[in-house]
Amino acid sequence: MDAPAPCTVSASRVSVVRLMLPTDANFTGNVFGGAVLSEIDRVAYVAATRHAKGTCVTASLDRVDFIAPVHVGELVDFDAELTYAGRSSMEVWVRVRAEALGGGTPRLVVEALVTMVALDRDGRPAPVPPLQLENEDERRRFEEGRKRMEARRRTRHHELR
Amino acid sequence: MDAPAPCTVSASRVSVVRLMLPTDANFTGNVFGGAVLSEIDRVAYVAATRHAKGTCVTASLDRVDFIAPVHVGELVDFDAELTYAGRSSMEVWVRVRAEALGGGTPRLVVEALVTMVALDRDGRPAPVPPLQLENEDERRRFEEGRKRMEARRRTRHHELR
Amino acid sequence: MDAPAPCTVSASRVSVVRLMLPTDANFTGNVFGGAVLSEIDRVAYVAATRHAKGTCVTASLDRVDFIAPVHVGELVDFDAELTYAGRSSMEVWVRVRAEALGGGTPRLVVEALVTMVALDRDGRPAPVPPLQLENEDERRRFEEGRKRMEARRRTRHHELR
Amino acid sequence: MDAPAPCTVSASRVSVVRLMLPTDANFTGNVFGGAVLSEIDRVAYVAATRHAKGTCVTASLDRVDFIAPVHVGELVDFDAELTYAGRSSMEVWVRVRAEALGGGTPRLVVEALVTMVALDRDGRPAPVPPLQLENEDERRRFEEGRKRMEARRRTRHHELR
Amino acid sequence: MDAPAPCTVSASRVSVVRLMLPTDANFTGNVFGGAVLSEIDRVAYVAATRHAKGTCVTASLDRVDFIAPVHVGELVDFDAELTYAGRSSMEVWVRVRAEALGGGTPRLVVEALVTMVALDRDGRPAPVPPLQLENEDERRRFEEGRKRMEARRRTRHHELR
Amino acid sequence: MDAPAPCTVSASRVSVVRLMLPTDANFTGNVFGGAVLSEIDRVAYVAATRHAKGTCVTASLDRVDFIAPVHVGELVDFDAELTYAGRSSMEVWVRVRAEALGGGTPRLVVEALVTMVALDRDGRPAPVPPLQLENEDERRRFEEGRKRMEARRRTRHHELR
Repeated sequence: MDAPAPCTVSASRVSVVRLMLPTDANFTGNVFGGAVLSEIDRVAYVAATRHAKGTCVTASLDRVDFIAPVHVGELVDFDAELTYAGRSSMEVWVRVRAEALGGGTPRLVVEALVTMVALDRDGRPAPVPPLQLENEDERRRFEEGRKRMEARRRTRHHELR
Repeated sequence: MDAPAPCTVSASRVSVVRLMLPTDANFTGNVFGGAVLSEIDRVAYVAATRHAKGTCVTASLDRVDFIAPVHVGELVDFDAELTYAGRSSMEVWVRVRAEALGGGTPRLVVEALVTMVALDRDGRPAPVPPLQLENEDERRRFEEGRKRMEARRRTRHHELR
Repeated sequence: MDAPAPCTVSASRVSVVRLMLPTDANFTGNVFGGAVLSEIDRVAYVAATRHAKGTCVTASLDRVDFIAPVHVGELVDFDAELTYAGRSSMEVWVRVRAEALGGGTPRLVVEALVTMVALDRDGRPAPVPPLQLENEDERRRFEEGRKRMEARRRTRHHELR
Repeated sequence: MDAPAPCTVSASRVSVVRLMLPTDANFTGNVFGGAVLSEIDRVAYVAATRHAKGTCVTASLDRVDFIAPVHVGELVDFDAELTYAGRSSMEVWVRVRAEALGGGTPRLVVEALVTMVALDRDGRPAPVPPLQLENEDERRRFEEGRKRMEARRRTRHHELR
Repeated sequence: MDAPAPCTVSASRVSVVRLMLPTDANFTGNVFGGAVLSEIDRVAYVAATRHAKGTCVTASLDRVDFIAPVHVGELVDFDAELTYAGRSSMEVWVRVRAEALGGGTPRLVVEALVTMVALDRDGRPAPVPPLQLENEDERRRFEEGRKRMEARRRTRHHELR
Repeated sequence: MDAPAPCTVSASRVSVVRLMLPTDANFTGNVFGGAVLSEIDRVAYVAATRHAKGTCVTASLDRVDFIAPVHVGELVDFDAELTYAGRSSMEVWVRVRAEALGGGTPRLVVEALVTMVALDRDGRPAPVPPLQLENEDERRRFEEGRKRMEARRRTRHHELR
């Protein structure tokens, strides 16, 4: 079978937007970390599936920084794009921005890096299209993503005991 | 108090995007009408609140057309913009488009017209900014919206007995 | 195949009753429009399915008037009955009444008209039994429903552009 | 303060009706016991609150018999009425009937006895109106309820160790 | 087929622990009885399934005592163990303890007895392993459970009319 | 104010156990990553709150490895313990193990490191008790945690641009 044709970063980039509801609140009245983490997992799944054009599963969350609290009643944008694509694994960069409805400017509230893996019908890793890089920023992020992926492979399952 | 400054249609336009999950499925495996209606109500609330810069409540859904079924696993975009703003009520036009993740083109699945009313702190109708129309389409939709609003007022609560 | 035998309005009439919970609350502490819309869609589905004796889907919400707010802790009755049945589509009239538990009288809070369509196993419109009308009110509502259905057909998908 | 005026059984009787959804399903595809138990607790709360005209809490479930499975897609009726009212506690009898939408007859699927207690603002037991019995069945059930309540008091918290 | 080998009480004993969230709150701000009942049903299902090594369904809740209110934000432990095993039915004893996070001691808040029945693939009662009793307490509880099971059989479906 | 007395690792260690339900399933029938991430966030919150004896918020997830899929119907144990405590931040190590009910052995499915921060009433970082280490493993993990925390501080918010 031929190698799949390269796909650009913007072809799989996706933005999921959601109004935060009272049922998302934790004990302090702000939005539960878990509500945000669920959406990060889903939007990374969408970006990876768009790139891989097939089933993907989450392999790891490599970094999730909670930068500022998210409030109930805010509109929250989960923006996901690929930074790196290897043979069957992809690194997805998710930036979460919140905006008060009464007319504020969006602020960055959470930032995450998620590793997704494409699977074939038998549940084994499947090849994904190469990532076609279109500018200097994308090339830099790809290189950084490649290094993180290698570091991850070395430390995976061996970090704690 | 001075009248609030006019605001454009695009200033309050908003798009909410959501992945349809297995828990959204009805008995046929497609997405429940109720799951779609909840999101339509919310996105209309967001657009109206952005325009009114204050609390809004739903006065009526004036037309919701289910054009095609929505499937679990699809990415669905709820796009809302104002067509008409009166003294304290606004008509919001919501278009819902669904897209299969494995690389299809979005298709229009639901279309709705929602009337929202701005409220002050005592729960009485509050004035909203005039709608600043920027092109011929917006002017035509405003005029059609105004006519629908008048027709609604005549028939409201008197349609059935 | 013979035409299905006529069925009365009362044979498919149904009432769904639900206690409104804290998780149904919106940002003002009243019940979310979306929570009410989901139940309206479901009770219309139940009435239509009872009449058609087979799978039905929502074709449109033609009018939903929010007449008064619904409060958390209230008992809410969603009452649905058919006003009109055509070849494969039905109009369902839903009246929603809320009642404070500590002994108030129910008040009409929402009123809706929903068009449902019966489907066969291949997803194509299926014939439904004729509606057997038993009194003057039912005959008047049937006639009004027939007119609304025709008006809907003319305007469907062509209202906005 | 005068004793509250007696209230009939039918004055507080209530019926909550709900369509069972795919999200209510357990591992076998039938409806989860927990989904039924939540509704039983709520409908008993509604009947007791109607009788006591004030806040009530669940003291005990004294008997819940699962007689037949409930299927997803069925319309389920939770019917609650008081059998006995003491000084501040009430026994509520809940009968649950399920009905297939495609035109079956309702069948009794669950039957429960719930003890509710009325509370005042400080959280202490509050007096409830006497139960005004209107026929022989109600008188018999009251007498049986009174005996169960006494038996419960003797065994409460001492049954197991 | 040979009779299944006996299994000890501790082999199927299980503890499910859950943080009570704002969405579990009822109208007084405490945890809904229904939220607790759902978990009791699930943990009894887990204990019975572990013992029976096959599908089980809830036959009855025979006694649920709400001893003290559970508060939102508390960590709640649902501990389940078998007291009695007959041919295909099992009695499960569930003790629920709540603990404030800021360093309190757990207190017993709910206690329940649940009867579960093992089913074969055709939905008929299936034999379960005998319960191997290891100390005096277990033997006493088994004997008490056996008596309750017999009393239940006599009164089941005949208690109310 | 005196420094808070040291607390051991085992004093705040906590295990949350949950049966995975059909509503937790993703598109492949396994449990959604988001459902697991929500529970990881909650159990880390419980362990941190127990140690800090006050409100905590999630600062970051520093590593979440999905080692094996979790299946619907499995009993899942989320075990959390502190590895490191600084002035106001704590590192929590979460191990997630899943077990089939029909009698399998638990297997490690997810492993995570979460950084939590204690807050005072004004939302500013609050001091937490020192961690009292009781054996060689705890001392080693503390030292590794301290190094990770320092590395995190250097890279936080600067990793991607």
